[in-house]
Amino acid sequence: MSHPTSDAAEQAFYEAFRTGNLEAMRETWAAHDSIYCIHPRGDPLLGREAVMESWRDILDRGAVDIHAEPVSSSVGANLAVHLVSEQLLDPEGRIVGLVLATNVYELTDGGWRMLMHHASPAPPPSGPRGQSLH
Amino acid sequence: MSHPTSDAAEQAFYEAFRTGNLEAMRETWAAHDSIYCIHPRGDPLLGREAVMESWRDILDRGAVDIHAEPVSSSVGANLAVHLVSEQLLDPEGRIVGLVLATNVYELTDGGWRMLMHHASPAPPPSGPRGQSLH
Repeated sequence: MSHPTSDAAEQAFYEAFRTGNLEAMRETWAAHDSIYCIHPRGDPLLGREAVMESWRDILDRGAVDIHAEPVSSSVGANLAVHLVSEQLLDPEGRIVGLVLATNVYELTDGGWRMLMHHASPAPPPSGPRGQSLH
Repeated sequence: MSHPTSDAAEQAFYEAFRTGNLEAMRETWAAHDSIYCIHPRGDPLLGREAVMESWRDILDRGAVDIHAEPVSSSVGANLAVHLVSEQLLDPEGRIVGLVLATNVYELTDGGWRMLMHHASPAPPPSGPRGQSLH
């Protein structure tokens, strides 16, 4: 599947996540080793092998209902940056995770593909501004 | 200061951070409202005003010794993505924070400028892979 826009690539990424489709997830990502992925509270995973191994582990645990709400995006000539607010829901529809994700997409010969995904826990709604480490 | 590469812009960003120079920090960022910044454990800050207000607060607290080690980078036609491992040190040289940051730079009429900074706490060295939320 060749995605004509970074929005289409993003839709495919979250659809693969939601449906637990590893093959679709593989196709969402750029086919080279400059990709990276940071799962919430995780170490950086660099390159195809490490990134895809993590997704196999995650998707093996079963489909996760995930809602992704766009917050901001900037589209360049061949890279696009999206900020997304993710809600993860359990089978009863309860929120089990709130995540902020920066997704970068790359325009490749095969359309727009994911280049990197940096996800981190969102602060609780009434929490601090989170500047303690900076 | 017009930075000819995203690496030069990154160096200026960390130099402004380290020296507590708000004016230099302002010049590091792109001069429009599509910028965003996520400090560790913080809410997304969108646009010049919110981003610069946060840096004023942070830099007002005094200079912070920060070491930024490049992990990965991808440079496109007019956007560049850098993954950086940050160490924050107190005046005695003790590590007080370990942070992972995705920095995106944009090629503007005034050279490369920061477009977004997404920072999140790095896991402890022996910690889990951090996939619990995904």
